Amino acid sequence: MIGESRPLSPDELEAALRQIGAERYHSHHPFHKLLHGGKLTRAQVQAWALNRFYYQSRIPAKDAFLLARLPTPELRRAWRTRIVDHDGDAPGTGGIARWMKLVAGIGLDPDYVVSTRGLLPGTRFAVDAYVHFVRDRPVLEGIASSLTEMFSPGIIAERVAGMLANYSFITKETLAYFTPRLTQAPRDVEFALAYVREHADTSERQEAVLAALRFKCDVLWAQLDALHFAYVDPGLIPPGAFRPELEK
Amino acid sequence: MIGESRPLSPDELEAALRQIGAERYHSHHPFHKLLHGGKLTRAQVQAWALNRFYYQSRIPAKDAFLLARLPTPELRRAWRTRIVDHDGDAPGTGGIARWMKLVAGIGLDPDYVVSTRGLLPGTRFAVDAYVHFVRDRPVLEGIASSLTEMFSPGIIAERVAGMLANYSFITKETLAYFTPRLTQAPRDVEFALAYVREHADTSERQEAVLAALRFKCDVLWAQLDALHFAYVDPGLIPPGAFRPELEK
Repeated sequence: MIGESRPLSPDELEAALRQIGAERYHSHHPFHKLLHGGKLTRAQVQAWALNRFYYQSRIPAKDAFLLARLPTPELRRAWRTRIVDHDGDAPGTGGIARWMKLVAGIGLDPDYVVSTRGLLPGTRFAVDAYVHFVRDRPVLEGIASSLTEMFSPGIIAERVAGMLANYSFITKETLAYFTPRLTQAPRDVEFALAYVREHADTSERQEAVLAALRFKCDVLWAQLDALHFAYVDPGLIPPGAFRPELEK
Repeated sequence: MIGESRPLSPDELEAALRQIGAERYHSHHPFHKLLHGGKLTRAQVQAWALNRFYYQSRIPAKDAFLLARLPTPELRRAWRTRIVDHDGDAPGTGGIARWMKLVAGIGLDPDYVVSTRGLLPGTRFAVDAYVHFVRDRPVLEGIASSLTEMFSPGIIAERVAGMLANYSFITKETLAYFTPRLTQAPRDVEFALAYVREHADTSERQEAVLAALRFKCDVLWAQLDALHFAYVDPGLIPPGAFRPELEK
């Protein structure tokens, strides 16, 4: 808890935000270590790609809710690039289309994935919680919740290198989603972090901003919990969710 | 999938609803078998009671969102009893107060539980998904999502008998929450089932009603997944959630 006293300086606030990442970012989750270390079967990687698709697919909705509530053309232009990054400017472009290359490249039926019929309920609840958070909470908290991207370049670099080295069914082409993220994420962070440093200028707002980032870490962590529980250990797949052995 | 053809009769619809329970109700979850069979430690039962508190505590909110959208005094009076059941008519009465007796009886700090600080994110996301579903979806689907109560008297009878027999730290007094539910749930089901049988009169509405009950089964199942994963197997407690060994 931050005391009742003076607010943190912007640098102290940023340090507190980074500390949350150091403690709670999903890079610490055992599923990630298995994924990057080549310890998963193709079916387990399929389950990851299928569930993570839902997260990717809802990001533009999350960003559109925030866009709708930003007050100036300047702010909206800056935030709009996120939607462009995910949805592209033409068929076959953008982050979601690149994610579908991964999905198809590892042998999943894209229509099945897009239908979300095989999604884990835990994934759906966590992702929807994120979209609703950004829709319903103050803009400052919505922006702060995006700051998990401060921690993503490290994990992405690790993931791409590890997955390419360790899985014969993964190619540079199937991982095309991640390459642009290495430049997009830092640019997005620069904007969001500057906004948060400027606007979180009371202890109360700083608490809210830190809570928003903790919440977002929970959203990412819970998705890996659900995957790990269903497909790794103890391997209890909930009724109706993707069952690799039933797929061709 | 129901065909494009004729809608089901009310009896066929009810049979299809009961079939969903037979396949997807959380009585089939391994955590329930452990809980009722006396296979859990006191700390694991604490984790269950702490997380389940959040579900109980949000039920009146869920019911109030539905109440707000019911069109007639008759319907609202019928639905209002659910809120009275949970919130009581005086301090210390109602289902939530009885749940707090369980919480205190097994050695949890009630203030800590009410704060939800130790809640599993997976619990919060699943419960919030339920509240939002009832707030945002058509009234018919909101009512249908309550129909998991069709299956609850069996599980409650099993739970009370099993927990009393198997845990020295559980008494009839601490399980006081469940006794009234054995009469409240059938009364609530009678109303909700009659409503659904009458109003789900097209194939499309019947599909929606069946999907709503499947969704609700997912909400209950995902809560046990999160508990089982964090506190039983593999026992990976997410950052910030209740850690029994840190409690007195």
